[in-house]
Amino acid sequence: MIDKSIIEAANAKAADGLRADYEALGAHLARRGIDIEAVKAKVAKFGVAVPSWGTGTGGTRFARFPGAGEPRHIFDKLDDCGVIHRLTAATPDVSLHIPWDKAPAADLRAKAEEHGLGFASMNSNTFQDQEGQTHSYKYGSLSHTDPATRAQAVEHNIETIEIGREIGSKSLTVWIGDGSNFPGQSNMTRQFERYLASMKEVYARLPDDWRIYSEHKIYEPAFYSTVVQDWGTSYLISKELGEKAYCLVDLGHHAPNVNIEMIVARLIQFGKLGGFHFNDSKYGDDDLDAGSIEPYRLFLVFNELVDAEDKPGLSLEHMIDQSHNVTDPIESLMASAMEIQRAYAQALLVDRAALEGFQEENDALMATATLKAGFRTDVEPILAMARLEAGGAIDPVATFRQSGYRAEVAEVRPKSAVTGGGIV
Amino acid sequence: MIDKSIIEAANAKAADGLRADYEALGAHLARRGIDIEAVKAKVAKFGVAVPSWGTGTGGTRFARFPGAGEPRHIFDKLDDCGVIHRLTAATPDVSLHIPWDKAPAADLRAKAEEHGLGFASMNSNTFQDQEGQTHSYKYGSLSHTDPATRAQAVEHNIETIEIGREIGSKSLTVWIGDGSNFPGQSNMTRQFERYLASMKEVYARLPDDWRIYSEHKIYEPAFYSTVVQDWGTSYLISKELGEKAYCLVDLGHHAPNVNIEMIVARLIQFGKLGGFHFNDSKYGDDDLDAGSIEPYRLFLVFNELVDAEDKPGLSLEHMIDQSHNVTDPIESLMASAMEIQRAYAQALLVDRAALEGFQEENDALMATATLKAGFRTDVEPILAMARLEAGGAIDPVATFRQSGYRAEVAEVRPKSAVTGGGIV
Amino acid sequence: MIDKSIIEAANAKAADGLRADYEALGAHLARRGIDIEAVKAKVAKFGVAVPSWGTGTGGTRFARFPGAGEPRHIFDKLDDCGVIHRLTAATPDVSLHIPWDKAPAADLRAKAEEHGLGFASMNSNTFQDQEGQTHSYKYGSLSHTDPATRAQAVEHNIETIEIGREIGSKSLTVWIGDGSNFPGQSNMTRQFERYLASMKEVYARLPDDWRIYSEHKIYEPAFYSTVVQDWGTSYLISKELGEKAYCLVDLGHHAPNVNIEMIVARLIQFGKLGGFHFNDSKYGDDDLDAGSIEPYRLFLVFNELVDAEDKPGLSLEHMIDQSHNVTDPIESLMASAMEIQRAYAQALLVDRAALEGFQEENDALMATATLKAGFRTDVEPILAMARLEAGGAIDPVATFRQSGYRAEVAEVRPKSAVTGGGIV
Amino acid sequence: MIDKSIIEAANAKAADGLRADYEALGAHLARRGIDIEAVKAKVAKFGVAVPSWGTGTGGTRFARFPGAGEPRHIFDKLDDCGVIHRLTAATPDVSLHIPWDKAPAADLRAKAEEHGLGFASMNSNTFQDQEGQTHSYKYGSLSHTDPATRAQAVEHNIETIEIGREIGSKSLTVWIGDGSNFPGQSNMTRQFERYLASMKEVYARLPDDWRIYSEHKIYEPAFYSTVVQDWGTSYLISKELGEKAYCLVDLGHHAPNVNIEMIVARLIQFGKLGGFHFNDSKYGDDDLDAGSIEPYRLFLVFNELVDAEDKPGLSLEHMIDQSHNVTDPIESLMASAMEIQRAYAQALLVDRAALEGFQEENDALMATATLKAGFRTDVEPILAMARLEAGGAIDPVATFRQSGYRAEVAEVRPKSAVTGGGIV
Repeated sequence: MIDKSIIEAANAKAADGLRADYEALGAHLARRGIDIEAVKAKVAKFGVAVPSWGTGTGGTRFARFPGAGEPRHIFDKLDDCGVIHRLTAATPDVSLHIPWDKAPAADLRAKAEEHGLGFASMNSNTFQDQEGQTHSYKYGSLSHTDPATRAQAVEHNIETIEIGREIGSKSLTVWIGDGSNFPGQSNMTRQFERYLASMKEVYARLPDDWRIYSEHKIYEPAFYSTVVQDWGTSYLISKELGEKAYCLVDLGHHAPNVNIEMIVARLIQFGKLGGFHFNDSKYGDDDLDAGSIEPYRLFLVFNELVDAEDKPGLSLEHMIDQSHNVTDPIESLMASAMEIQRAYAQALLVDRAALEGFQEENDALMATATLKAGFRTDVEPILAMARLEAGGAIDPVATFRQSGYRAEVAEVRPKSAVTGGGIV
Repeated sequence: MIDKSIIEAANAKAADGLRADYEALGAHLARRGIDIEAVKAKVAKFGVAVPSWGTGTGGTRFARFPGAGEPRHIFDKLDDCGVIHRLTAATPDVSLHIPWDKAPAADLRAKAEEHGLGFASMNSNTFQDQEGQTHSYKYGSLSHTDPATRAQAVEHNIETIEIGREIGSKSLTVWIGDGSNFPGQSNMTRQFERYLASMKEVYARLPDDWRIYSEHKIYEPAFYSTVVQDWGTSYLISKELGEKAYCLVDLGHHAPNVNIEMIVARLIQFGKLGGFHFNDSKYGDDDLDAGSIEPYRLFLVFNELVDAEDKPGLSLEHMIDQSHNVTDPIESLMASAMEIQRAYAQALLVDRAALEGFQEENDALMATATLKAGFRTDVEPILAMARLEAGGAIDPVATFRQSGYRAEVAEVRPKSAVTGGGIV
Repeated sequence: MIDKSIIEAANAKAADGLRADYEALGAHLARRGIDIEAVKAKVAKFGVAVPSWGTGTGGTRFARFPGAGEPRHIFDKLDDCGVIHRLTAATPDVSLHIPWDKAPAADLRAKAEEHGLGFASMNSNTFQDQEGQTHSYKYGSLSHTDPATRAQAVEHNIETIEIGREIGSKSLTVWIGDGSNFPGQSNMTRQFERYLASMKEVYARLPDDWRIYSEHKIYEPAFYSTVVQDWGTSYLISKELGEKAYCLVDLGHHAPNVNIEMIVARLIQFGKLGGFHFNDSKYGDDDLDAGSIEPYRLFLVFNELVDAEDKPGLSLEHMIDQSHNVTDPIESLMASAMEIQRAYAQALLVDRAALEGFQEENDALMATATLKAGFRTDVEPILAMARLEAGGAIDPVATFRQSGYRAEVAEVRPKSAVTGGGIV
Repeated sequence: MIDKSIIEAANAKAADGLRADYEALGAHLARRGIDIEAVKAKVAKFGVAVPSWGTGTGGTRFARFPGAGEPRHIFDKLDDCGVIHRLTAATPDVSLHIPWDKAPAADLRAKAEEHGLGFASMNSNTFQDQEGQTHSYKYGSLSHTDPATRAQAVEHNIETIEIGREIGSKSLTVWIGDGSNFPGQSNMTRQFERYLASMKEVYARLPDDWRIYSEHKIYEPAFYSTVVQDWGTSYLISKELGEKAYCLVDLGHHAPNVNIEMIVARLIQFGKLGGFHFNDSKYGDDDLDAGSIEPYRLFLVFNELVDAEDKPGLSLEHMIDQSHNVTDPIESLMASAMEIQRAYAQALLVDRAALEGFQEENDALMATATLKAGFRTDVEPILAMARLEAGGAIDPVATFRQSGYRAEVAEVRPKSAVTGGGIV
């Protein structure tokens, strides 16, 4: 674990500059009628969950290039998540993937407590075969034509709920690879009927205070059709299942050019938005760091969230879902958590009364300028001050590098093998 | 009108070849266990409506290049539609656009009867301003922030229903240009609430035996967001409105790469598919002739339709919606009607029992090969024979050219002006 | 024209806040080792040309909704351009479109001088037919199958050069609508051969100190293929023509997902980048205000330009090319000019030595963070101070509104007709 | 190996039907002025190379689901390729991948001769790290910032040429994964300069009678930029390298909506098309079976090839490059080879004189109908008869299944491990 003294030493050097920037920004915002302290308070309360699997180096179907000190198991991963939270003070929860992270509940709880972490949504895995598995998911899982395979997949989801219950998670995220690679391979209607029937069995076993998320994706690993291809299908699923079922939006799972913030708005309006998998993409499900490609899009998503903040019943789980192929996973997760906070802070700065007025008058230019005024404000001093006050680092990446953590764990964690494709 | 003798003369020359081809295909299909006569009978009963506006030359925002003998008004358009049906025997109905096609109902009925035509779905227009209109649709119509503008748009839709009632139409298609060009210009949630409220007013005035179609489109004329952007939103609309509300799918209104046949399957499964606007596209809403760019996609749509043919309650309106910028509109509409028939005939040839077996066994290769066996069969002899037997032309385009119709009408219809952009 | 006193009065109210912001930013940048004055000096020298046609309200193929006080002719347009430059001090040149802007050279020069404006690249128009034109461009212009049509198009380009010569322009931008709507309509190779032959004739008449730009576009108005579809073809053209031929990049003319900044880099590397048409787009050639959809992409383009700033021989023409359908054209052009300046200023802030180091070490995270540090700095005080010092407005849009200019011109410029589609 | 008797037995049952179909088609084509025998002769001469790696089961980054009897090494792969050629008589050559297929040249030649196979283009691999490799390709290979890594990659390509020389190959295909995942990670210009320098070293070692192909790809495994992103860059490479350098087009490596047949036309026109990697895709580099998603697009590519058939100097290598995740690789490769032949045969049927006439007259409708007349002809009897006459199977997939080959090899080839991602 990174020692407090390291953080304090690093912060000491940057604190004066930060204070000057924070003061100047406060004065500037005051001229715009905004109380910087109120914004900082909201940012300080905002948290995003990190994915346990994100702490390892990802890969593509072509190759995986391992990094140094990759976590060997869920306890190493939780250590890494602890570092991330310690430095950013922005990632209080971890999202687990079963069976990858299977371990005794007490041990999981203990390790999490050690780092002050909780557990976010549980993820089941029926898109891969595990050693010794009775039925293969090669041709599908929850929507497979074979009832025995479907039953196995249902059972796995129920087991995942059970594990989650014991560690304090409150939701199950279901993403499957089911679909087809060729026109005609599957009857798309029968396939979806089977999917719904399986999900209803899982739903029946969901605890009363839990939620289940369906996550849509336009393609990959299936290349002609996927069972849960878009938000329309995801919405149908949540309606068919019931009140505890919601949709989860991953920013990289859409067709090119699609207006994602509008999907967010629609799902909120119809009471079915459950949460996010944050990341960024330029082409497909690229799983790049949040905000690294289209930061304004991320802001526009948060603009919808802030706009709906007071909507009764709205409760969202914010999670990161990325694949880190060329960066240190801890650094990328920290960078993403901060970018997500940044988009939130920028959205908080939008003058909503003015915006509403411009919208009412169809003053498109001033309406969009009002959004942009929030976006282009450099809120870094707010984020950094919130971190500093919470015991985190002013500059988490620099502090992480100074800490020597990676080199340290690399000594006890053996270099992972040069294996074929990467899995994330 | 094109004289029967012209058609007969043209057919006489081609009949022998057709008979030989038809016989050979019959023998081939018999070896595949298919009765060619049964297929032909189904094709003969299949009709697709032509859009009145499609008989004029289209254009882009850059230019419109008028053609010779363009229709001056709805009666000229109905004459052109009569020619199309006469030659193809495949387009028994015409879809009108109000106010473009406004005329005394009795006159419309009389002209249609003259050509043996009926009236398909009515289309309202609130995406343009008309001379003398009180409120502008520049910033929206059914979803406008101003109640008076919304009321005007609602009223126009009701008027369109009234006109349709008098001429025997049974449905209203609502496509609007409402949306926004800039992030923030519109509050997307409020805008959709207003849209739904307006549509409910229209719905309240829908006759009991009518249906209302909402037509989604990802973009254009709005370039940041559209109110009815995809099938998910269109489905929500149909659910909010009620039993008489359905979704209409235009093949060119989707994001790149989207699996349209799957959307068709989903809407059928959930009882909300109402009809089609057929055309083809490579980039955006290109409005090209049906089947001209991706004929296999058109076939895959029909594969879903044939698969669902016996589904209780399924009733669809098939319409063409194209813009003809570089071809003779009559020729393009005939070509499209035949391509749509072609896709239907090919889909009828698919061995569905075999397909189901392969799907059940996850034999992807044979399943897709089974579809392809239908697609790659040259069904032209079936289509041509169906036309011949119905009094149409074996080769409608060639016969049309021989008839001299275009030159004839060009003498009475003045050349239309070189105006700016084209509207379709 | 907007009176100096109006600008001064508006500036007076905002000057104190600006000075405070500028000072704070200066102090912050100093801590980052950047001299704010040096940046401001570069920004002050940076100019982008406005398109004469952009001062009118645009439209789509569906409709055009005119605005108040639209310019009647090139002299009105130049007045509007004068206002834009007066308020922003960022748009010293105007790009003309022939034949839309045809007028006696002396009159053009006089009007431009009145506003302190110069003339940027000339644009020819062979994508529309003009009243009385001998040969139609319905099926192409420079690449038409008919030699007479090609000759007419060549002649028009030469005439456009001639007009440009007389008013001090130094380049010709050639964008054509030539292409095809259906597979097979054109032999794509023959068509390109004809295009090249025509362009060589134009090139032969290009003055020695002129440049010719070919502008590629993936689609629209042609919907299956365009003759100059991408930068690859545009590059081939510039090579075939010779040293005075360059490529012009319009940000909205690419396939979805394409990395435009990389194209910019490649064209610079191979000595063939000539200039830009700035705007923004989410779907197709949406022609929205620069930076309104993906501001980071605009920044990344400028990152390449700043990176290459010292490259010998690099000389670029920066122009805006937009269509304003729902905003006041003057306001949108001002907003875009400022966004373009903003991206330039942000790119100037990038620590290039650090960036190079991170690139060398493959430190992807710090490299991208280094770019982002430039992007997320709020450079508005620099831009506003540069405007103020040049006699422009601190807040050009607000000042424009206060000036009453639009209402004033609306009294002398009659409301334009509700015509069909819009042309831009 | 599949015994001749098995093929003959299977053919015997289907021969009568085939003969009837062939005769009928011959009569039909004769009415269209086409000699079926001439078409068949051309088809019989047409061959496409299969990729050695395609004989194994592919996978995605999420999972690989192995099949039965997967080849253990290049000799198993050559056996499988032998089966494919035996049954289809359409795949005379195999394309190798180094180091995957490294083996003594004499053994390779012997095994190939056994099956009557030759060797097509050699493929190097610098997108993965191999056990024991000195320098990692994590951050690039031929374009790496580190000279030693680049040298290693150059050396590997030279070694690949050496191996190819000994077995009779005549070309090297270079596809690399180099690029970047984040804006700023790489200086795109420097990176391309390094790439070109490395390629020049490889080129210098290319035998005189060899060709080198650069293969572009828009994304994956790099997700922000790739060094050889499109045909424009690939063309530049081929020009920089010299006369023996050509571009290779993979149908799945383009941005959405891109007109690939046009790229083919341009590269032919400028003398730089070298060959193809055939496959099909709906979303990204899906590597699905050729013609399975957009068969008309495949036809349009062949339409360009047939159009240019007599172009002096045109010499192309046709190869398949696919990933078979849910089908038997042998079956998919056979199916693709036949689809490629089909597209070729259909393109041969196009009435080029008529087409040219319609193009000249801008008769778009008849021009595209002329292409479609070729496409919609069911040429299966021609393909099957060509196979039958060459000793292949009328129905290769059915015959393969009847042969029991897969079960047979599954007994000697152990089931491969359930490993993570798949590599293709």
